[in-house]
Amino acid sequence: MIIVMGQNATKKDIENVENKLIELGFKTHPIYGDIKTVIGAIGDKRLLNLHSISQMPGVETLVPIMKPYKLASNELQQAPTIIEVGDVRIGGDEIVVMAGPCAIENEKDFVETAKSVKRSGAKILRGGAFKPRSSPYAFQGLEEDGLKIMVAGREATGLKLVTEVVDTRDVELVNTYTDIFQIGARNMQNFRLLSEVGMTNKPVLLKRGLSATIEEWLMAAEYIIAEGNHNVILCERGIRTFETATRNTLDLSSIPVIKEVSHLPIVVDPSHATGNWKYVPALAKGAIATGADGLIIEVHPNPPCALCDGPQSLRPEKFESLMAELKLVAQSVQRKL
Amino acid sequence: MIIVMGQNATKKDIENVENKLIELGFKTHPIYGDIKTVIGAIGDKRLLNLHSISQMPGVETLVPIMKPYKLASNELQQAPTIIEVGDVRIGGDEIVVMAGPCAIENEKDFVETAKSVKRSGAKILRGGAFKPRSSPYAFQGLEEDGLKIMVAGREATGLKLVTEVVDTRDVELVNTYTDIFQIGARNMQNFRLLSEVGMTNKPVLLKRGLSATIEEWLMAAEYIIAEGNHNVILCERGIRTFETATRNTLDLSSIPVIKEVSHLPIVVDPSHATGNWKYVPALAKGAIATGADGLIIEVHPNPPCALCDGPQSLRPEKFESLMAELKLVAQSVQRKL
Amino acid sequence: MIIVMGQNATKKDIENVENKLIELGFKTHPIYGDIKTVIGAIGDKRLLNLHSISQMPGVETLVPIMKPYKLASNELQQAPTIIEVGDVRIGGDEIVVMAGPCAIENEKDFVETAKSVKRSGAKILRGGAFKPRSSPYAFQGLEEDGLKIMVAGREATGLKLVTEVVDTRDVELVNTYTDIFQIGARNMQNFRLLSEVGMTNKPVLLKRGLSATIEEWLMAAEYIIAEGNHNVILCERGIRTFETATRNTLDLSSIPVIKEVSHLPIVVDPSHATGNWKYVPALAKGAIATGADGLIIEVHPNPPCALCDGPQSLRPEKFESLMAELKLVAQSVQRKL
Amino acid sequence: MIIVMGQNATKKDIENVENKLIELGFKTHPIYGDIKTVIGAIGDKRLLNLHSISQMPGVETLVPIMKPYKLASNELQQAPTIIEVGDVRIGGDEIVVMAGPCAIENEKDFVETAKSVKRSGAKILRGGAFKPRSSPYAFQGLEEDGLKIMVAGREATGLKLVTEVVDTRDVELVNTYTDIFQIGARNMQNFRLLSEVGMTNKPVLLKRGLSATIEEWLMAAEYIIAEGNHNVILCERGIRTFETATRNTLDLSSIPVIKEVSHLPIVVDPSHATGNWKYVPALAKGAIATGADGLIIEVHPNPPCALCDGPQSLRPEKFESLMAELKLVAQSVQRKL
Repeated sequence: MIIVMGQNATKKDIENVENKLIELGFKTHPIYGDIKTVIGAIGDKRLLNLHSISQMPGVETLVPIMKPYKLASNELQQAPTIIEVGDVRIGGDEIVVMAGPCAIENEKDFVETAKSVKRSGAKILRGGAFKPRSSPYAFQGLEEDGLKIMVAGREATGLKLVTEVVDTRDVELVNTYTDIFQIGARNMQNFRLLSEVGMTNKPVLLKRGLSATIEEWLMAAEYIIAEGNHNVILCERGIRTFETATRNTLDLSSIPVIKEVSHLPIVVDPSHATGNWKYVPALAKGAIATGADGLIIEVHPNPPCALCDGPQSLRPEKFESLMAELKLVAQSVQRKL
Repeated sequence: MIIVMGQNATKKDIENVENKLIELGFKTHPIYGDIKTVIGAIGDKRLLNLHSISQMPGVETLVPIMKPYKLASNELQQAPTIIEVGDVRIGGDEIVVMAGPCAIENEKDFVETAKSVKRSGAKILRGGAFKPRSSPYAFQGLEEDGLKIMVAGREATGLKLVTEVVDTRDVELVNTYTDIFQIGARNMQNFRLLSEVGMTNKPVLLKRGLSATIEEWLMAAEYIIAEGNHNVILCERGIRTFETATRNTLDLSSIPVIKEVSHLPIVVDPSHATGNWKYVPALAKGAIATGADGLIIEVHPNPPCALCDGPQSLRPEKFESLMAELKLVAQSVQRKL
Repeated sequence: MIIVMGQNATKKDIENVENKLIELGFKTHPIYGDIKTVIGAIGDKRLLNLHSISQMPGVETLVPIMKPYKLASNELQQAPTIIEVGDVRIGGDEIVVMAGPCAIENEKDFVETAKSVKRSGAKILRGGAFKPRSSPYAFQGLEEDGLKIMVAGREATGLKLVTEVVDTRDVELVNTYTDIFQIGARNMQNFRLLSEVGMTNKPVLLKRGLSATIEEWLMAAEYIIAEGNHNVILCERGIRTFETATRNTLDLSSIPVIKEVSHLPIVVDPSHATGNWKYVPALAKGAIATGADGLIIEVHPNPPCALCDGPQSLRPEKFESLMAELKLVAQSVQRKL
Repeated sequence: MIIVMGQNATKKDIENVENKLIELGFKTHPIYGDIKTVIGAIGDKRLLNLHSISQMPGVETLVPIMKPYKLASNELQQAPTIIEVGDVRIGGDEIVVMAGPCAIENEKDFVETAKSVKRSGAKILRGGAFKPRSSPYAFQGLEEDGLKIMVAGREATGLKLVTEVVDTRDVELVNTYTDIFQIGARNMQNFRLLSEVGMTNKPVLLKRGLSATIEEWLMAAEYIIAEGNHNVILCERGIRTFETATRNTLDLSSIPVIKEVSHLPIVVDPSHATGNWKYVPALAKGAIATGADGLIIEVHPNPPCALCDGPQSLRPEKFESLMAELKLVAQSVQRKL
């Protein structure tokens, strides 16, 4: 860590900061510039209460040198993490596509959709039984009945399941049904929920928060890993910006950034990012070419009748032709699908 | 609601949309322009699954006319809501100041701070026992022990308490100690938690999410009110923008906007918004002059030793002089403090 | 256009608005809801001073139905615009790559770079002679000397030139040297400059402003086209968000949005968007797979010695191998390169 | 400046960076941590081409210690700059209010408005003769005829004039009429225009760009000052965020930040920031209480008939009563108005 002293800091101020750092177990290296002095402090910042330094007289600012996340970083683990869900491997050569409706509505439609997306090449079946909706008057999901329907979809197809959990009290219940937990964007910093899924042994699909920096996203992953669950799949789903032509702004740059700083796999959700099925194919292809390890795409047999997020859902036949196109893009970047 | 048909919509498309609207219980009023047709639909949009319309062939976009929130809006209740916490009234002529440390650390310091902020004119004592921290390695709060210390502060001063709850499982516990629940920015769309505090009869201080629009914030309030708890205090605490000179960008414009569309009181948190105690006095004054009903300010007897958010905490003596200045500003806009 | 009247609007208010609209040449269609009244107004909004309506008593808000841009929209022209620069066609089947250094530094390096990028398959040579720099102390470009060096690059290779113009006074000068004008992000709403290049007959590469919506970007294109120059190439180069891991957030979603609402070609600049050469290859591939008509990439023979934007420049050998990879991606989406 | 070396940097990499820094005239101070090495470099970063370092093998990131602006900073000049326009002093005890219509429309209305705002206490008369409009079809201003009308307003009242210049070619012309140049938000990084007004001796009102950081805003001021014109008045007018309830988000936090890092005066434009006259009074009061040195407010005798920005203009009688309220707020923070 580097402590920058203000230009009016006195010799005494600088001495006091050094003494405090030494007291906290750091080794200090002051550098006296013509106008300002900076103090290099060697030691583990993660153990330090930074504020105890930043408020000392004369201190202008602190500059951290080490990343605040450790287990999610590739500083310690350099090989990419490959997450196994049965015989599906996420983070390896093969691009994994997760597909299904936003919300579970009834068994017949869900099983039909499940069979259809399987035929098209999806490996994991998505569906929402607990829906975090911005309006209390909107459909909130079928809850446990929805989970049971998901299991019927798994039984009919052999696909693995991913579904969202929104309340610490439901983690145990959802755990008995799902193969992968999903933590939604709105809960990315629901730290208790992160810890709770971190105490299970199921993979966790961690969506990026609407206004989360990549660093905060990795810190959220750190919460899960710190409880012992290393199976975190990051999911880019768009961030909030001033642009209104799409629901969010899909940040595909996060793919190469994550690949540079972390060992965790990253998948992309073009459906929630754009909020418009018309834009999903273009961005699905873009995500794969940019280096995503997978996709999560909404598919619904009859979008105008969907109880949730119909406008962003592809019909099964559109999904099928998209999958054919995606195979070509995957090959062009030496990946399989 | 207005349905805008695309310029290539056929007569049949328009007819189909009208029939669907009628089937859903709306009265329709088509307007045929030279290039596009729009259809006015009269009825309660809140009952409608909009997607069923937005995906019909020929539909370009839907334009809602009514606000999506109802109970939080002043369309139904025009008189401002005044929330009573003992003899403290929030939302009336008097500006209510809430003050205290970010995190509860020990009883001695807390009681001392409580006495000090009371002397300076604060009416409500703030303190965190459950802390949502972006790092799993940071101090997470004293939990129930912290709540007990808060009660000691209340007993020593008569001040009312406000403290954050972060998990649905803790609502009952926190309810036995606090006078006001706080829902933090990161939990503004933790809908289960909103419903849970909505089922209590305690006032709720609802912080605006880091990237929440004013409409989403009022929808979060709607979740609480829909459960029967009308005592929601909105708290503006800054939104996330590209600017990095302050931790967040305090959106004081939200004050007149809220006053125009809602009956709920609004308080401002300049401490978390700026992340820097030096900027707190200027923005506290600005908030009052702009029309805030109150402030929530971090005060710590020894900021460099605070376990959380020290850099944004005022020392008690600075808080005291600020309160004197705030009284003058309050008077200048015909409010009491 | 739709005029939404507030719930307290009187019958008289509604009548007055209707009369005003009729006076302005609109046909009106009021729709009386239970709570609010809306008035449909048929006619060309572009001729209307909206404010004359929006401030009338009782008016809550105006909802435009038609897009504010006309010539840039595909409402009138549905076939994609293909821009010809000599025998290079931008907007057709073939993906066009523009490459070269950020700033022109000297003839020897520039000509060498030109030859190298030509060998790798670039069709257009980029280089900056007038540099808009955020610091007055930074290198501002070689100005006319730089333009002359560019011409030497064109003569040595046959590549066409694209270069930025930053001042209305320089348009004539730059016009005598360049094949394509570039309008930089910071000048996207320098309306006088837009009009000035609109009065030439050279194609214009119009970069998206750092905080411009897609609609504003198309309005900027409209300024150019309105002067008679239809040859506008849109260039997505990242928008400003809260994320700091990349210099800007490349908004690849803008590609399918532009393709849906406009006939203009769109190219992508991954170099300025990310500010980091390491991320350029991934996003260049992503851009092509998403549907971009071209790329503009910074290439410098010795990035550490570049006078401008070295960190985002690829070395010629990296550019060469990237071009080989891009060919595969282009083929996978049925484009040539 | 601090150079952070990546954890895989070799001894040779570190040596090379040190040698390069020494060659560039810096003194170097390496600090060897357990995982990473950082190198302190003493010297003037402003003279350095940073990229030459940032791209060397092993370099992870550069951390600047000194601010990039110099003349706009209070590192060299600590006393606040007071700008004199005739007998009006901006930046002193007295709060200076600038008022008038967005666009000049005709002499009669303008002179009437001028007299009215003068009676209410405004000291400077605003009005636009050159209007940067986002649509080429919108009213673009009366140009020189508008300037002549402004002079008539000055002659009738003695008020000083502020008006926008949008093209380098117009600076000389505008200079013959105005007392203060205005640089609009869209031109904040039109560096040629900044230099051009920097070569005059008239004060410059420099609006903050829609997505400009405070640092970039001060760099824009630096461009003006670097040409010899020290009379820069900063104008906060809202930044672009995801919030849509107001046109922009007024960043009042910029006031205390500017006061901390710069000696330049700062005024606030609540009219353009909110885009809605109803919110102007609240934010005008907020701005003064937060510490602004002045305000610039749109006033129009008949807003529904304004040719530009009517919705955000106050009627003269509303402005008059606002001025009475502002006097009280100014007094409450020990300022005069």
